[in-house]
Amino acid sequence: MKNTTLCYIENDNNDYLMLYRNKKKNDANAGKWIGIGGKFCENESPDECLLREVYEETGLTLLSWKLRGIVTFVSDCYETEYMFLYTASDWVGELTACDEGDLSWKKKCEIENLPIWEGDKIFLKLLREQNDFFSLKLSYENEKLVLVLLNGKRIISEDLQ
Amino acid sequence: MKNTTLCYIENDNNDYLMLYRNKKKNDANAGKWIGIGGKFCENESPDECLLREVYEETGLTLLSWKLRGIVTFVSDCYETEYMFLYTASDWVGELTACDEGDLSWKKKCEIENLPIWEGDKIFLKLLREQNDFFSLKLSYENEKLVLVLLNGKRIISEDLQ
Repeated sequence: MKNTTLCYIENDNNDYLMLYRNKKKNDANAGKWIGIGGKFCENESPDECLLREVYEETGLTLLSWKLRGIVTFVSDCYETEYMFLYTASDWVGELTACDEGDLSWKKKCEIENLPIWEGDKIFLKLLREQNDFFSLKLSYENEKLVLVLLNGKRIISEDLQ
Repeated sequence: MKNTTLCYIENDNNDYLMLYRNKKKNDANAGKWIGIGGKFCENESPDECLLREVYEETGLTLLSWKLRGIVTFVSDCYETEYMFLYTASDWVGELTACDEGDLSWKKKCEIENLPIWEGDKIFLKLLREQNDFFSLKLSYENEKLVLVLLNGKRIISEDLQ
């Protein structure tokens, strides 16, 4: 079991800051575009992890942020992951290079066309369309999404696309 | 590191359902009053853990609930704990006996006078006085609260009492 954070940093042009994971060895996310984040260090609170990961991966310091949901990932390949999912639109600093991949601002509406995880499309849609906090459970077999629960209720992923 | 849930179930008389922990062996909470909850089972989402723990400990089935905050407990005695803190006022079922302690409805305003953890007074006050989601980090040495961070900012616990 591990706890992680993931943050979608927004700018004024309706872009998210995305990371193309192409540099890290043995990376479960290799070849995919994701947001900014990572695993909790010892004794970190969720927001401490968020601030550290964003600074390490982007050089940016967040001034405010919002916890939008908790995503529980269950898989036959990886340990269960509890991901604290944030958005943030207020920061200072200059973008730096990231040693895990290439950073790039991407139009929110175009992100679904990039190589991303199937389940990420579901929570990206939730981020776009609702303000309410959500609990999303995504079960994968291999890299295939086999079960989606939103606030405890089973949903068909096609319904959300 | 462990993930847990804690829920304060409310009734129409301004009471919380409290549990006096006096039955479990080697219980870190022995002799204290707390809410209802416990540790995540394998692959459970936070809300699945919440529903199971509430049913097991009280016989009640929650119909709705609200995640109010995340509490990070750091201690020199126990592993780091991430506690998903809920309130709930809508349920069905009949109250049953709990094998971890005695259940009792207690007036919200009287709970601070019961033997409870020092840090619990802080999040109970936050539950009473604000609707916004919060991240609270509580650091204990032995059973003494030595550091309190609310949304990343240090606060003096006396300020909150």
